[in-house]
Amino acid sequence: MFEVKVTIKLKEGVSDPEGANTLKALHLLGFENVKNAKTIRTFDLLIDGENKNDVIRDVEQICQRLLTNPVIHTYEIKIMDG
Amino acid sequence: MFEVKVTIKLKEGVSDPEGANTLKALHLLGFENVKNAKTIRTFDLLIDGENKNDVIRDVEQICQRLLTNPVIHTYEIKIMDG
Repeated sequence: MFEVKVTIKLKEGVSDPEGANTLKALHLLGFENVKNAKTIRTFDLLIDGENKNDVIRDVEQICQRLLTNPVIHTYEIKIMDG
Repeated sequence: MFEVKVTIKLKEGVSDPEGANTLKALHLLGFENVKNAKTIRTFDLLIDGENKNDVIRDVEQICQRLLTNPVIHTYEIKIMDG
């Protein structure tokens, strides 16, 4: 069993409305020293398997087919333990 | 200027509908070896300040007042550089 963390960020230049609204709200609350806010999404997956390379191959597929949009996202796969 | 990462997880036992739906979709796509999927939210903040402790104090406030709900979330603050 492997624990895999997939971290999904927006590509540079892609608008991040949630981050922008968080920043606006923080300024309204008086936290004017906050200069930027970006959001990052992480999926923590538990995957059954014997072979680390097979799991990595599956997770690559999972990212491409379900979790990310290659037009706007970059992603990073991190295997925690086996 | 400090880069601060705030990682927000759901508490143990709190339902994670997005994670549950991701798991269901992965099973439908044939990835039956995925046994669990949890979502984690991260805010990447850029904060102006001289003093690390002041920044940590501000971020604690930011978490409590805007970013998290103490009933369902746990959070972790990580200062990247100063």
